[in-house]
Amino acid sequence: MDIFGEILGCLAGICTAVVFLPQSIQTIKTKDVSGLSLGSYMIYCAGMVLWIAYGVYLHSIQMMFFNALSLFFAAIILYIIIQQRIKKS
Amino acid sequence: MDIFGEILGCLAGICTAVVFLPQSIQTIKTKDVSGLSLGSYMIYCAGMVLWIAYGVYLHSIQMMFFNALSLFFAAIILYIIIQQRIKKS
Repeated sequence: MDIFGEILGCLAGICTAVVFLPQSIQTIKTKDVSGLSLGSYMIYCAGMVLWIAYGVYLHSIQMMFFNALSLFFAAIILYIIIQQRIKKS
Repeated sequence: MDIFGEILGCLAGICTAVVFLPQSIQTIKTKDVSGLSLGSYMIYCAGMVLWIAYGVYLHSIQMMFFNALSLFFAAIILYIIIQQRIKKS
């Protein structure tokens, strides 16, 4: 693969890694989870676990790293959603 | 790649494709975007465009298809977030 492909894949990976950084900061600060879908965050976390497993399978360090970072932020949000729902009930 | 790797990649792709289906249904129904981060959805959509471009580059139909579907749902949510913010201001 040439340099263009490498850069494209790397930029896409960085977006995946940091996508839930703003959302997690906002959710930690406000604890406002009323508009957040529990189902979507459960699917997202499950998907990230699968992508990490796929990265392990392909021996791709980048795939493991970017998706693990993304899982970290998404798991924070998922945790707060569940915590707030338990509090409410 | 053997069948195990193919199934793992396919399951991960399906999760990516449908991740924002529950969130978009909820957001369309409730129009509640108070807890949603505009920044995260902008990064997500940009990331999906990059993944689709990477799929075109790698001639991977699956990569293009799964990410295009994911972009579709995320774009609906992003549109409603922007629409609600304009209404509020």
